[in-house]
Amino acid sequence: MSLKIALLGFGTVASGLPFLLEENGDKIKSAAGEQVQISKILIRNDAEKARLNAMGYEYQFVTSIDEILSDSEISIVVELIGRIEPAKTYILKALQAGKHVVTANKDLIALHGKEMRDLAERKALAFYYEAAVAGGIPILRTLANSFTSDKIQGVLGVLNGTSNFMMTKMVEDGWSYKEALAKAQALGYAESDPTNDVEGVDAAYKVAILSQFAFGMFLDFKDVSHQGISTITAEDVAVAQQLGYVIKLVGRLEEKTSGVWADVSPTFIPETHPLANVNDVMNAVFVESIGIGQSMFYGPGAGQKPTATSVMADIIRIAQRLKEGTVGKPFNAFQRPVQLAEKTDQISRYYMIINTPKQNGQLLRLVSVFSDQGVSCQQVLEQELDDNRARLVIMTRLMNQLQLEAIKQQISQESDWHLLNVFKVLGDDHDN
Amino acid sequence: MSLKIALLGFGTVASGLPFLLEENGDKIKSAAGEQVQISKILIRNDAEKARLNAMGYEYQFVTSIDEILSDSEISIVVELIGRIEPAKTYILKALQAGKHVVTANKDLIALHGKEMRDLAERKALAFYYEAAVAGGIPILRTLANSFTSDKIQGVLGVLNGTSNFMMTKMVEDGWSYKEALAKAQALGYAESDPTNDVEGVDAAYKVAILSQFAFGMFLDFKDVSHQGISTITAEDVAVAQQLGYVIKLVGRLEEKTSGVWADVSPTFIPETHPLANVNDVMNAVFVESIGIGQSMFYGPGAGQKPTATSVMADIIRIAQRLKEGTVGKPFNAFQRPVQLAEKTDQISRYYMIINTPKQNGQLLRLVSVFSDQGVSCQQVLEQELDDNRARLVIMTRLMNQLQLEAIKQQISQESDWHLLNVFKVLGDDHDN
Repeated sequence: MSLKIALLGFGTVASGLPFLLEENGDKIKSAAGEQVQISKILIRNDAEKARLNAMGYEYQFVTSIDEILSDSEISIVVELIGRIEPAKTYILKALQAGKHVVTANKDLIALHGKEMRDLAERKALAFYYEAAVAGGIPILRTLANSFTSDKIQGVLGVLNGTSNFMMTKMVEDGWSYKEALAKAQALGYAESDPTNDVEGVDAAYKVAILSQFAFGMFLDFKDVSHQGISTITAEDVAVAQQLGYVIKLVGRLEEKTSGVWADVSPTFIPETHPLANVNDVMNAVFVESIGIGQSMFYGPGAGQKPTATSVMADIIRIAQRLKEGTVGKPFNAFQRPVQLAEKTDQISRYYMIINTPKQNGQLLRLVSVFSDQGVSCQQVLEQELDDNRARLVIMTRLMNQLQLEAIKQQISQESDWHLLNVFKVLGDDHDN
Repeated sequence: MSLKIALLGFGTVASGLPFLLEENGDKIKSAAGEQVQISKILIRNDAEKARLNAMGYEYQFVTSIDEILSDSEISIVVELIGRIEPAKTYILKALQAGKHVVTANKDLIALHGKEMRDLAERKALAFYYEAAVAGGIPILRTLANSFTSDKIQGVLGVLNGTSNFMMTKMVEDGWSYKEALAKAQALGYAESDPTNDVEGVDAAYKVAILSQFAFGMFLDFKDVSHQGISTITAEDVAVAQQLGYVIKLVGRLEEKTSGVWADVSPTFIPETHPLANVNDVMNAVFVESIGIGQSMFYGPGAGQKPTATSVMADIIRIAQRLKEGTVGKPFNAFQRPVQLAEKTDQISRYYMIINTPKQNGQLLRLVSVFSDQGVSCQQVLEQELDDNRARLVIMTRLMNQLQLEAIKQQISQESDWHLLNVFKVLGDDHDN
């Protein structure tokens, strides 16, 4: 007996599965209770098939999804095509055909996950996607199984390897954003259109998915605001360093009295914080909860083997549940109605950097803007740029989103000021 | 309907359970599928009962284990007495009486876990102990459930909060061992007899337990060699810093060709390694595996709430398994025969520090000792102590245990030399 699975797509991640089955077959068989066998692989066309055959792959490649859907011996469909279509249609068809589904597709889960999960639930099928968040880090299953007794208050994640690689180069080696992006593209970390990575879209997908597991809420992607790293300059990096921080792109979820606040933004992290040492393409998820307190889960956020390992863990879990007769259980049983935090509950410290005329009184003018909104500044620095212009850097105390919006609007109305950047600042325990 | 549990002992950890049930009752009930109710609590005597009643606790306190064993409504017994007896007898009796068991008792699991696990297996009962290793970090369940598809090659753990607190003070603030110990005792981290914490015994218990989950091997405690932090001096700390390392007490498991090598010893960790930033009473488990690569799990190693949270997660898992009808499944299904690494397979780099006469030729003499055993030195430093004595510091390249033993013996035979310390050195990827 063996457990027959079908793969949709045979790109980087998918081709990591044969590696695991070869190198770790005994343990996988023992854990799954039977041999896991790749029965059919859906590829695009005959040309791809010829190419894969020439590379020595001897799987049964098919070019029509129907050949998989109609094969009653296949019990699990593993979607590794990526993006929305045709992946979405194939997953829905697979569930309709009674197949369990494993996917690593974060875009799809973040944008259409609820529809698929609901269908899987109605059909009592497994629908797992551990690899969709932080690739190799087993964070979703850990949140679902080990935080059952705990109440999570906040999640901070370094969730995008490409932008973290770039920020590491910018912070540690003083590279510019452009230099870092060129290197990331040369290494194959960033695509030719890097928007999703550098503008925080990919991280926001993962934040939306994490909200299901951390807070039991199926957030809409549009409920996760996101800001990327493309406007970060060497000056921002230098100021951060001078004040004892590193800048990283951080996805953050917090449960406030009124609901959950979810966003992705460049964030000043105190250099003593565990996330400050998460460098290069590594990811980490930092959890604050009433029971455990502070915990962090660190590992590779992408890559062939790590992602394939998470996918295979999902496949094994389905095999076990099939044997136990519990396969209808949801990946994550923690479900509550979505409730979003009010703007007055969205509270953070901020870093702001503003280009101003070099004139006496600029600092006083600026502090007054904050003071008018009831916001204190922890620190204000003035830096001369040339004979005419200066830069003001402000580290604020806590303020809410309404205060932030009012301050930004006030600054934008001052015609001789130019607001360069606004980033969140993570406090240490003492002054936040 | 409610799930009735009994607690054995009502010390620090046990009294964290009511906190969780109160603060997180809805989520726990939802996850467990029913209310979790503390039905009876075993305490030592009537005096303790009077004291607890006076503190406002309104549980049903009992002083005989039989009142719990004979209560057919109680399905889970939670042992939180600690140490070996009477905990061991009580757990065996509870299993004999058909109760599922949860414990946080690392000493007991490391020394007698197999007997208890085998009995639980024969009786198809749950026997869970997530809290026994690294308190609040959900490491055991993660290894059991998420590393099913992966093959672990090595585990490095900062597993003892007390000694890590002390090492942090010694490394970051330059405290002496004695000062650090006094502070740890004053803060209640170290007991009046600190042996188990500072001599690596407690960490070795945890290494023995980790071997079950990482390698499927139920190591005997005696198979885990251990060395503590009590001989570490300010000079060792200073040399480490000078060379770019921090010293921590590290539990290590490695699978070599011939089998598993398990030990606990003070270890030089490169300051860029993720474990180097695990400070104070925090714990972390760093895993190297063929699939994920490098991952790390970080959190509090002890404390009332973190430990109680892990215990409660075990209770919830039993409740779920009872509902699913799968309660006989072992905590960790990965099991292989124990196979220990040969000494020739026990390979590491080492730091050695030796007190020698201040005379020409000492360094050459010493390097010859290493050379005779076929061991190269990466770096040798000589430090003058006074007119008569000097210190030699050696950072070796890789050597095996037989070579190490021969070198130590040779050095001990030189009557004018005194070997002060020998610690493991963790390599970075490039030179290990």
